[in-house]
Amino acid sequence: MYDRLKGFRDFYPDEMTARREVIDTVEGTAARYGFREIGTPTLEATELYTDKSGDEIVDQLYNFTDKGGRDVTLTPELTPTVARMVVAKQQALAKPIKWYSTRPFWRYEQVQQGRFREFYQTNVDIFGSSEPTADAEILAFAADALTDLGLTGEDFEFRVSHRDLLGGLLNAFDAEVDTESAIRAVDKSEKIETDEYYDLLHDAGLRYDQAETFDDLLGTDDLADLVEFAETDRVADAVANLEAVLDAADDFGVREFCDVSLETARGLDYYTGVVFECFDSTGEVSRSVFGGGRYDDLIESFGGQPTPAVGVAPGHATLQLLCERAGVWPEEAPSTDYYVLSVGDTRAVASEVARQLRNRGHVVESDVSDRSFGAQMNYADSINAETVVIVGERDLENGEVTVKDMQTGDQTTAPIDDFPGDLERPTYEDWE
Amino acid sequence: MYDRLKGFRDFYPDEMTARREVIDTVEGTAARYGFREIGTPTLEATELYTDKSGDEIVDQLYNFTDKGGRDVTLTPELTPTVARMVVAKQQALAKPIKWYSTRPFWRYEQVQQGRFREFYQTNVDIFGSSEPTADAEILAFAADALTDLGLTGEDFEFRVSHRDLLGGLLNAFDAEVDTESAIRAVDKSEKIETDEYYDLLHDAGLRYDQAETFDDLLGTDDLADLVEFAETDRVADAVANLEAVLDAADDFGVREFCDVSLETARGLDYYTGVVFECFDSTGEVSRSVFGGGRYDDLIESFGGQPTPAVGVAPGHATLQLLCERAGVWPEEAPSTDYYVLSVGDTRAVASEVARQLRNRGHVVESDVSDRSFGAQMNYADSINAETVVIVGERDLENGEVTVKDMQTGDQTTAPIDDFPGDLERPTYEDWE
Repeated sequence: MYDRLKGFRDFYPDEMTARREVIDTVEGTAARYGFREIGTPTLEATELYTDKSGDEIVDQLYNFTDKGGRDVTLTPELTPTVARMVVAKQQALAKPIKWYSTRPFWRYEQVQQGRFREFYQTNVDIFGSSEPTADAEILAFAADALTDLGLTGEDFEFRVSHRDLLGGLLNAFDAEVDTESAIRAVDKSEKIETDEYYDLLHDAGLRYDQAETFDDLLGTDDLADLVEFAETDRVADAVANLEAVLDAADDFGVREFCDVSLETARGLDYYTGVVFECFDSTGEVSRSVFGGGRYDDLIESFGGQPTPAVGVAPGHATLQLLCERAGVWPEEAPSTDYYVLSVGDTRAVASEVARQLRNRGHVVESDVSDRSFGAQMNYADSINAETVVIVGERDLENGEVTVKDMQTGDQTTAPIDDFPGDLERPTYEDWE
Repeated sequence: MYDRLKGFRDFYPDEMTARREVIDTVEGTAARYGFREIGTPTLEATELYTDKSGDEIVDQLYNFTDKGGRDVTLTPELTPTVARMVVAKQQALAKPIKWYSTRPFWRYEQVQQGRFREFYQTNVDIFGSSEPTADAEILAFAADALTDLGLTGEDFEFRVSHRDLLGGLLNAFDAEVDTESAIRAVDKSEKIETDEYYDLLHDAGLRYDQAETFDDLLGTDDLADLVEFAETDRVADAVANLEAVLDAADDFGVREFCDVSLETARGLDYYTGVVFECFDSTGEVSRSVFGGGRYDDLIESFGGQPTPAVGVAPGHATLQLLCERAGVWPEEAPSTDYYVLSVGDTRAVASEVARQLRNRGHVVESDVSDRSFGAQMNYADSINAETVVIVGERDLENGEVTVKDMQTGDQTTAPIDDFPGDLERPTYEDWE
């Protein structure tokens, strides 16, 4: 007997039914916003990650040398791949480019609740617009996907921040600050003690009194405080941009889900503007459910024309935790419209009945194991068949089949010529 | 600028639209037969393949040592994984177990037309039935999936053979035959010269005159010839089983797609009973499109209870070649129900119109780039929008929006209160 690898999962049909429903819902929301599905490779050249990504990612890569001597990596995230794809066809693609896809990614890291080495995300991105409307459309897609899953404003909140606002504030201090290190410290601030947070800001170049001032500024309720403190165009512009995105989110009907939370910084270095993370409003799911933001410099850094970009990537493991907590995770059970039960020498007729029901789009099983009436009925029950159509020799001599409602146990006979006949979805009620 | 890896593919939206339609069709057919979707890992322990598979596969593995020192492999096929999963939950799973999934697999091999290093298959399997009806249901699913794609009996044929029939015939010769080598020779026979074929059979243990007799036997039109030649129960049983499968296929309405073709042997060693391959009837696609068959011993060899199994795995690269040859490959273009065009300060109203149309299930794009009327109209055209709803300041003052049919170019105004109002899919015709 073989084991599966640690951090990798098998999804059996019951669980997969629920997962598929959730993935279809999230993808359906993306499709209705006019995002278009793409398909992407599992392997990329390792340099796609080592050239630019933060060290955190590089240490966790599933990378290896293939049989042709190439250093290759199982994609740990989608963004470098879509950046490569945008650059490759930059001239041919109409702007805005709006793409989505759902697929697994891989990171070699510690396995914990809601975190696996193989994990699934639906990536949704817009390339080619720097307008606040584009940021807002990403927020609107994400909020609609969650409400389409049955979640409400009581269940989740988007904590919205602005990368350049953080950078601008840091820049306004009279100090040589390593902005990326400082922003990584902000990203960790909620998970660590204040002393440790200030130590990290100090390591990044702020004095301790400046660290405290910075911390206070990030906690303000009034963005005007930040403009006043910094007195720079950069901070004023960042605040104006953040407010414009929230205005657009209001027009899109999703402002209610957004809270300004400047401590939200996102771990990845390539963000440039608005960033946000989705959290469980009750705090029961303690980690960020997913996040997104604007990354205007990435395409150019991959060798393309300067191309603004904004995106979000709901991760399905943490999304499942949130849905389960809120009681909206779909039922993990099979559903079956019909079981066509064949007893005696009736396979030809039963197969034709099953075929006609399938042609109408229904999920139909029939016997493939030459089993008894009772064994077939038990099986029909195990797959939650709504209706069992019994095709028996004696009934057939009378030109009939028996139709059984599995919910009530009621059954009746129907003329074989009328089953399914002109009916789209014949049930017991049609002949009771 | 980065390149993608050789043998790996990027699917941009136009191509992906067609691929998604084909995958949805094949999966939809499987779902209507009551096959249930599963999800499976990308990586497995390498021993899952090296312990049992033929050398051909092992040489082509993408295998490597992970950061925890495990020898792991990108799955080159699904069957060992599903065998592992069946064994892991053998007692809990109701029989028959009917599973499907669509995903990529990886083999390091020469890239050619319709063959890539990363390739996509829809695997469809039944575990727990040794009955010919199960083999026939797999044939019926495969035939229905192809006809659901728009293919006909003029386009494809299933060449059906029987692994044990070949083994039984070889066994009936007065010779020490390496059955697996001989069957691999049969599998190659159509691609090589007769002399070479006979040499391979000779290497496997047959005399040259026996090789010729064997070759003649495989070409017979009458399966009774084989029973008569061998005079063994094994051959008689195999012929009876093959005929029973074809009888069941007749009941299922798919006998017309099946030709007995004993030269069809399938490359993999684990098949035990009926095997079949799908070919382009015109021969224009010269390679096998996909194949399947019965593999009754595999689950036991993985440490499980003896469990009969039969399956098929349409490969999407060769399936695409067949669909393109037959003219049924879906159109590679985006489709969009509505573009909501906003000019002036109308974003709030335009967003609400877009939201209401999306709530009705439609694909709706709106401006995220703050573009001019003309630029938006060009974009709407580029995404094949059927209807453009123009939300302009002057129209809004009159309580109206403009509705434009993009096919005809006709346009008219509609009261904003009625758009969409009670209409599920409002178009120009509703107000012309």
